[in-house]
Amino acid sequence: VLLICTQYCSSQSLGFNQQFFELYIFTMVYSGFNNSREHNYSTYIYLLPAFGGEEITRKFLQEVSNILWAYIHKSNQRNSKVLDFHHPHQLKAGLEGLNMELPDQPETLEQILVDCRDTLKYGVRTGHPRFFNQLSSGLDVVGLAGEWLTSTANSNMFTYEVSPVFVLMEEVLLKKMQNIVGWLEDEGDGIFCPGGTISNLYSILLARYHFYPEVKTRGMGALPQLALFTSEHSHYSLKKSAAVLGLGTDNMVMVKCDERGKMISAELEAAIVSTKKKGLVPIYVNATAGTTVYGAFDPLNDIADICHRHSLWMHVDAAWGGGLLISDRHRMKLQGIERAWSVTWNPHKMMGVPLQCSAILVKKRGLLKECNELGAEYLFQKDKHYDVSYDTGDKSIQCGRHVDAFKFWLMWKAKGSEGFEAQINKCLENAEYLYDQLQRRTDFKLVFDSKPEHCTVCFWYTPPSLRCLPAGPEKEAKLHQLAPWIKARMMEKGSAMVGYQPLGGKVNFFRCVLSNPATQQEDIDFLLDQIVQLGQYL
Amino acid sequence: VLLICTQYCSSQSLGFNQQFFELYIFTMVYSGFNNSREHNYSTYIYLLPAFGGEEITRKFLQEVSNILWAYIHKSNQRNSKVLDFHHPHQLKAGLEGLNMELPDQPETLEQILVDCRDTLKYGVRTGHPRFFNQLSSGLDVVGLAGEWLTSTANSNMFTYEVSPVFVLMEEVLLKKMQNIVGWLEDEGDGIFCPGGTISNLYSILLARYHFYPEVKTRGMGALPQLALFTSEHSHYSLKKSAAVLGLGTDNMVMVKCDERGKMISAELEAAIVSTKKKGLVPIYVNATAGTTVYGAFDPLNDIADICHRHSLWMHVDAAWGGGLLISDRHRMKLQGIERAWSVTWNPHKMMGVPLQCSAILVKKRGLLKECNELGAEYLFQKDKHYDVSYDTGDKSIQCGRHVDAFKFWLMWKAKGSEGFEAQINKCLENAEYLYDQLQRRTDFKLVFDSKPEHCTVCFWYTPPSLRCLPAGPEKEAKLHQLAPWIKARMMEKGSAMVGYQPLGGKVNFFRCVLSNPATQQEDIDFLLDQIVQLGQYL
Repeated sequence: VLLICTQYCSSQSLGFNQQFFELYIFTMVYSGFNNSREHNYSTYIYLLPAFGGEEITRKFLQEVSNILWAYIHKSNQRNSKVLDFHHPHQLKAGLEGLNMELPDQPETLEQILVDCRDTLKYGVRTGHPRFFNQLSSGLDVVGLAGEWLTSTANSNMFTYEVSPVFVLMEEVLLKKMQNIVGWLEDEGDGIFCPGGTISNLYSILLARYHFYPEVKTRGMGALPQLALFTSEHSHYSLKKSAAVLGLGTDNMVMVKCDERGKMISAELEAAIVSTKKKGLVPIYVNATAGTTVYGAFDPLNDIADICHRHSLWMHVDAAWGGGLLISDRHRMKLQGIERAWSVTWNPHKMMGVPLQCSAILVKKRGLLKECNELGAEYLFQKDKHYDVSYDTGDKSIQCGRHVDAFKFWLMWKAKGSEGFEAQINKCLENAEYLYDQLQRRTDFKLVFDSKPEHCTVCFWYTPPSLRCLPAGPEKEAKLHQLAPWIKARMMEKGSAMVGYQPLGGKVNFFRCVLSNPATQQEDIDFLLDQIVQLGQYL
Repeated sequence: VLLICTQYCSSQSLGFNQQFFELYIFTMVYSGFNNSREHNYSTYIYLLPAFGGEEITRKFLQEVSNILWAYIHKSNQRNSKVLDFHHPHQLKAGLEGLNMELPDQPETLEQILVDCRDTLKYGVRTGHPRFFNQLSSGLDVVGLAGEWLTSTANSNMFTYEVSPVFVLMEEVLLKKMQNIVGWLEDEGDGIFCPGGTISNLYSILLARYHFYPEVKTRGMGALPQLALFTSEHSHYSLKKSAAVLGLGTDNMVMVKCDERGKMISAELEAAIVSTKKKGLVPIYVNATAGTTVYGAFDPLNDIADICHRHSLWMHVDAAWGGGLLISDRHRMKLQGIERAWSVTWNPHKMMGVPLQCSAILVKKRGLLKECNELGAEYLFQKDKHYDVSYDTGDKSIQCGRHVDAFKFWLMWKAKGSEGFEAQINKCLENAEYLYDQLQRRTDFKLVFDSKPEHCTVCFWYTPPSLRCLPAGPEKEAKLHQLAPWIKARMMEKGSAMVGYQPLGGKVNFFRCVLSNPATQQEDIDFLLDQIVQLGQYL
């Protein structure tokens, strides 16, 4: 029995059930358990760190990898579904055996593997070439390997002593990003944090502290009423941060945009002046480099001039657009970003790093630490035997912090800057291809009629039944219902996923995101054909 | 050649170099590339989603799993090092080939694998049985499988449409946790978030909004000066949150603790009364269930009585102690927690879930959403075809949010409540064992002389050279230097890791954490012996 069990058989050639049966016998013999009811199955108690748990642990993890590999393989096949949609009540009803409820007694490891398979089965394949739904999409294999390693290392970013390598990798990445933004050698600081919203929150937190350091100890009560500025097309995280930080959403002034979704700089200046007249104190402007829906780039240099004139903190939310900095062909769209005092940049969006990977970059060195440090003595002892300036955790608003840097570092190693550039250029070419197709076809209409600057393309589909209707409220109402209806059918079919929304006075339109490196032109053609096929008889 | 390459050979029986050589030939033939310099190696461009990338992707991921498995295996061997310590400047110097710098050109996949091995080599084995350094330790194999799957699914928690299964699992887990806290069926809400600090931040954010909903739009300027209360032994995240939210650290009143580190409830009441007299408005009290250093439990029922009398929001920071709720033997230590209005509970600490997994639980249903929602139309459309109450992302202060629920769900399936209970009881038994050993030995002294209530044990070691010194500043000064010195030597040897810190008037003492399920009594004996061995000649 021992021989059978220690012999390594690929689960390709031997079914897992059989392997587990052998393991079961093995464990029974090895552990001296009798055949009583409670030991009838192999459960977690035989896994490491249990004594003698090596073989079962190895086989369990091997089987998990096999399941994951099968998933990855299938997600890359165009004829597989993007999702197998079920309504919440259906999934909760324990459909086809996926029982969500948490048991008192252990499940067998075999059942755990079934649970893994089911979880993947009813999920969404965000790496599928026809997943156009979110700014973060695709599945980078090297990034994935990085994330598997990260979770195996299971460490924490607060101190050098527990994460020596990861802390240094974070430093290297942040310096590289600051360098790409265009800051000088003696400028620049930053930290990875859980998502673009938190990055943007940091920027406001830092601006407030920069102008009013007493806020840390005394709170907002010691400050005048502050005002902040962002464009009406900017991400909602700006408003959310204003709420969280106690500044109030009303004090986040929404500046008008042009037809293309870019902030109108004259409107910004006017808003600053009029806000001052009302007695508020402007401190902060957010410029967006790559808006969420239109993918628009605000005029950074104009905004920087205004910030300079009024001595305001200039932040650039390049969560979505930051990746373009790495492309010689596209980085001019962010001209002026080097004048920003802080920058949000999410490698998990345009650079295809697995979720989550988001950085806040800060021009003024030391400010992050000053603003956030509290010097907890159980973590940040000054009498350690190494250079404690590498205990960077006190810069953070978190305490424990997930290692988000490694997968990004590993991807950079694997691709080089050139590889990232090629990938980003390819995505933008796809966006242009979609734009060209839409221009050519009479059944589609672009939401704004200019070449996409980034990887989102916004459009309406007009089915034959609506084409003859005169423009007016009735047509608008029907068009408004169309995108959600088509999207719903597409999800039910599982053929593709694409987002939609209204904006300002515009009724629901599709927003197709092309950040997925798996997407080819044939997938874009497929998407348009699907929309037509589903919508034509409406 | 095709035959060689498609045939699956376990990397156990065939070296990876050889495999890659074969793959190289395969890719050369298959892709029709000539043997020009830039295609001399297999790089990321041959991985999926590249056409024909299945085999190389599979082998690459297989090799990554092998590396990770070898790491896990070694981490469970007591004779392996906990860490291979190097100073920052040594690692940065590219020691033994680990080059941190980010290249312009791609590395080969073989080099990527070397990078993975090196990263693990110079890291810290937080799952090693002799890692006593952090509240989060150990490496749960099922939890790890869950995290591998999570990263492969690479999804986001904001909407049901992209994370149908994960959103439902989060709901099931939160309900279970609320139920265990002891709230009624019609009470309870919550969300997973990136760490205990953010969980605590949520609690203050919610308390502020509960009493002053206008703060969301108008900011702190519209509010009186607020006061919050927590104990001097509580986690620094309370103060940090007060700074971030614009309340000010000065307005977080630190209430005195008894010798054991528990908040003195009479002191709390006195502080509330005196703060009111100063014209501030108390709104919030944090009680800690399991303090960071002493592992102490505040008297929750007494604090709840006081909160009730003064109409204050009662939060319980059970980040560290929450796990004990699942143990019949230990849950009485948290008696009164059901009276809290919000609870922080980190399954990544006492329940051994891989980092990160932290929940904020809120008694009042709907408040989280009201406080944080902004209804972004590109994500939270109301005209979707499914029940949009499952689009829970608008409850969050984040936008994108990592899937932290799945690994926890899978572990619960694998262990059942009973398995978690057994694991937690075992850890507490280890703490008691250490306590017993320390009591028995004359060369060690406990920082507080009572049985540990949780899994931290605090103590001094007195080497022979100090034993005869009279108590006084000289002895104290020497004792203060001792713990960092011993810890440094231990890290250099790589034999174990344990934390230390001063507290109040007390000089540096060791804080040994026993949350690691891999730890056995022999490891505890080893730790004490190591301390003696390293410290005896000082």
